[in-house]
Amino acid sequence: MKAAVIAIGDELLIGQVINSNAAFIAEKLDAAGISVEEMITVGDDEEAIVNTLHRSLSEHDVLCLTGGLGPTHDDLTRSAICKFFKTDLILNEEALENVRRIIKRRNVPPTKLNEEQALVPRGCDVLQNSHGTAPGYFFHREGKHVAVMPGVPHEMKAMMEHYVAPYFQEHPVGQVIRHRTIMTTGIPESFLFQQLGNLDELLEGAKLAFLPAPTGVRLRISVKEKDEATANRKLQRVEEGIRKKAAKYIYGVEDEELEQVLGRMLTERKLTIAVAESCTGGLIADKITDVSGSSNYFERAIISYSNQSKVESLKVRMELIETHGAVSNEVAKAMAEGVRQIAGTDIGISTTGIAGPTGGSPEKPVGLVWIGYSDKNETLAVKFNFGDDRRRVKERAAQAALELVRRRLLKIE
Amino acid sequence: MKAAVIAIGDELLIGQVINSNAAFIAEKLDAAGISVEEMITVGDDEEAIVNTLHRSLSEHDVLCLTGGLGPTHDDLTRSAICKFFKTDLILNEEALENVRRIIKRRNVPPTKLNEEQALVPRGCDVLQNSHGTAPGYFFHREGKHVAVMPGVPHEMKAMMEHYVAPYFQEHPVGQVIRHRTIMTTGIPESFLFQQLGNLDELLEGAKLAFLPAPTGVRLRISVKEKDEATANRKLQRVEEGIRKKAAKYIYGVEDEELEQVLGRMLTERKLTIAVAESCTGGLIADKITDVSGSSNYFERAIISYSNQSKVESLKVRMELIETHGAVSNEVAKAMAEGVRQIAGTDIGISTTGIAGPTGGSPEKPVGLVWIGYSDKNETLAVKFNFGDDRRRVKERAAQAALELVRRRLLKIE
Repeated sequence: MKAAVIAIGDELLIGQVINSNAAFIAEKLDAAGISVEEMITVGDDEEAIVNTLHRSLSEHDVLCLTGGLGPTHDDLTRSAICKFFKTDLILNEEALENVRRIIKRRNVPPTKLNEEQALVPRGCDVLQNSHGTAPGYFFHREGKHVAVMPGVPHEMKAMMEHYVAPYFQEHPVGQVIRHRTIMTTGIPESFLFQQLGNLDELLEGAKLAFLPAPTGVRLRISVKEKDEATANRKLQRVEEGIRKKAAKYIYGVEDEELEQVLGRMLTERKLTIAVAESCTGGLIADKITDVSGSSNYFERAIISYSNQSKVESLKVRMELIETHGAVSNEVAKAMAEGVRQIAGTDIGISTTGIAGPTGGSPEKPVGLVWIGYSDKNETLAVKFNFGDDRRRVKERAAQAALELVRRRLLKIE
Repeated sequence: MKAAVIAIGDELLIGQVINSNAAFIAEKLDAAGISVEEMITVGDDEEAIVNTLHRSLSEHDVLCLTGGLGPTHDDLTRSAICKFFKTDLILNEEALENVRRIIKRRNVPPTKLNEEQALVPRGCDVLQNSHGTAPGYFFHREGKHVAVMPGVPHEMKAMMEHYVAPYFQEHPVGQVIRHRTIMTTGIPESFLFQQLGNLDELLEGAKLAFLPAPTGVRLRISVKEKDEATANRKLQRVEEGIRKKAAKYIYGVEDEELEQVLGRMLTERKLTIAVAESCTGGLIADKITDVSGSSNYFERAIISYSNQSKVESLKVRMELIETHGAVSNEVAKAMAEGVRQIAGTDIGISTTGIAGPTGGSPEKPVGLVWIGYSDKNETLAVKFNFGDDRRRVKERAAQAALELVRRRLLKIE
């Protein structure tokens, strides 16, 4: 079974909004054994939507549409769908109940505009919207399937998870696609490629993709097999081969973030951590606290942007800052040790650097970052250069700080 | 002139990577007066790439491709391009110099794999890559234009900015597309729609899109005119009309983030700010420090996840926490006032809430957040409910905290 994902919205075509919905839908279809072969984005234009439906449905078995179902005048997907399927609108009582329930939460009466969201194309299965007022539609015609969902990401996601994905799990498609992703950090793509050696030998016909990002390179192994067991056996063999070649750089699997891996390691070891951030400005704490349950090991962070705050909140001696500068080995170490002692945690980490675009000098260029680590046995700092883009410097520094903790815990040099 | 953006990569089709490149390219083309009518994503598959090139070039005047130019075995765009244009590869000396320069930075000798990146299709203009080893290509054939760029975002962005966008500025296309985006927060989409009243009157033929996000609803006005002056006059009239209807909720224009607007307001008023975060876990500080120059007004943040840290680092009385709970009006106010006094800043803000998915109770459900504000004249806290998704609770709470400061500074109730 082949699928296309169709996103609808002028805001996508002028580049104002990044299409994150297509990736989410593709992941769910892929997991159900349906190969997504194409993604298409068209504008809020009834004719363009109808034309795309005609072409795509002739080439694919499954279409998932997202966007253009809202209450305002620029939402044209519903009328395009009616035209394409040659049908009209009828009131769906359950959707109307839902509109009233959602609007009631906001403590105002529903408007006519709100209630009109409950009109749906005749002849579709209605996908109720647990998070918003616009219902979705699911058409099954001559062995082909068309799901139409809102563009608001969490509304679409709930519909994929509660209706569309389960439908294809109940009606399986006869082939199994499985992937395994191995997460690495601290090594550039071409060096990782070399490190792996002869790929034909390693892969036995599986596919391997290199996916570089500011936080590291992901390796994705893909296999397509008749059954689950064969697919899983092959994935496992290839993964073991890769691990033998690049163990040091691998921190996790399956799009697991480093902060999740580290959270598990800290929990298992019953260790606590505190953070002192200067150039990363709160991003390390933000990442750590994205993990549910982080309150069990994350005690506090001090975001010490001013020198004064480094002295007052972290007990860094002003003399150190005056002698070596705020961006230095000595200050990074003093920050890491300071936050560890003040918070009474097992581990303290710190960042101090020049995120840019201003503030650099020949000796201390934009992108220079010192990362400090302190536990009861050792306090050290490592020097990095993370380039010249402010946000990327913050992202790479935050990742390197978390990775430094992982490597110290595992005694990897 | 009509354009299509073509992204290439299996990682996109299985949903592992979100296609942010297409939006960036579209924005640049749109600014040059070129309407992007379609975005397409296909896999790392030579035949699929060639077929898409055939179809797209028959329907559009400009194609921008991104992805599949890397050094590894799964990069097939270069060979597909050679096949499509019926050409072969030649060595580009400048690209080779560049490969050697980039690799040298890493303090290792270049490999054969690295140097092969300097082979380019015969007959194209070569787009040198200032950030990576893979050059891009630019073909001009019979009034049509095909740009081929790497998939690594910052490499592609530099090529769009230095080569592709300037080319179309030097060869203008005879129509002007202009947009104006108005940023709102604190009002849901359908209420904002009602607030604006009769749109036909307001718009005079311009288009208006409602773009909801966790941080607020953006309103995008679009006009297509013969010349710049007419376009700008119409945009201005429509913007003024919208401002009359919804002034209170408008914090900025043109995808300006609230933290940028607030940074400017604090700088103009010579005010400083400090932050005490519990449930947002560093996200407010991360946002504030994304703004270059924030060190002039941002003094420090205390991320006080534990009760102990609220008492020690923020001087919140333990008795308050025991009586009212950490998530309460009283503790939010004490945190905001505490961080303001400790940091010696003009303003202190705070968040305390239940980000979930665990930790909720009937009285204090997941999503409940108290946001505190303190300056020398007043200390107050506002209660919100931000739903049940951990990351979204953090994002909405961080935005609401920044918005609270903006409204207090402007005395908007």
